[in-house]
Amino acid sequence: MAPFARHVFVCGNARADDHPRGSCDPSGEGALHKAFKQAVADHGLQRTVRANKSGCLDQCEKGPSVVVYPDNVWYGRVSEADVNEIVDEHIIGGRPVQRLLMPE
Amino acid sequence: MAPFARHVFVCGNARADDHPRGSCDPSGEGALHKAFKQAVADHGLQRTVRANKSGCLDQCEKGPSVVVYPDNVWYGRVSEADVNEIVDEHIIGGRPVQRLLMPE
Repeated sequence: MAPFARHVFVCGNARADDHPRGSCDPSGEGALHKAFKQAVADHGLQRTVRANKSGCLDQCEKGPSVVVYPDNVWYGRVSEADVNEIVDEHIIGGRPVQRLLMPE
Repeated sequence: MAPFARHVFVCGNARADDHPRGSCDPSGEGALHKAFKQAVADHGLQRTVRANKSGCLDQCEKGPSVVVYPDNVWYGRVSEADVNEIVDEHIIGGRPVQRLLMPE
């Protein structure tokens, strides 16, 4: 079975403020994850799209990190202001947001 | 970019003991996730395989739940005793473990 058409994982890792690798969610409040959940709900996509918080995705220097499966599309430096564009263009439209793609 | 050949997400949701949907990780200790991390390390796969804890995967009645992306293969009722089989057969061998596949 594959219960979701698209499955978004939002890194929720929080490290100490002075850690050299930085943190995807320094406050630990999960605001970016909550923004994805809200956008999914706003579009009525709860039955086919899931947004989950995850542990460290190990791309800390390029974060805040988000990955969309099964597409295997990775986004970096994602902010709450980017969430609607990712949902509209990629999750709904099937076109990954080029400007946010994580660099190699 | 797609930094991992396979990305395993282990549900870490813990609900109250009397919740009707149950919990994937009632103790909240993440033992199943830790077992996957250990197996990945034991096989020297840390550069190509990632095992992350995730928030609720919304398959609670069939849990403990594990999903392997980008394969989009879902496993249910996974116990620590199943981890090496999933890693050996599926993660390394490319053959999903049929007996653990999550039912529709």
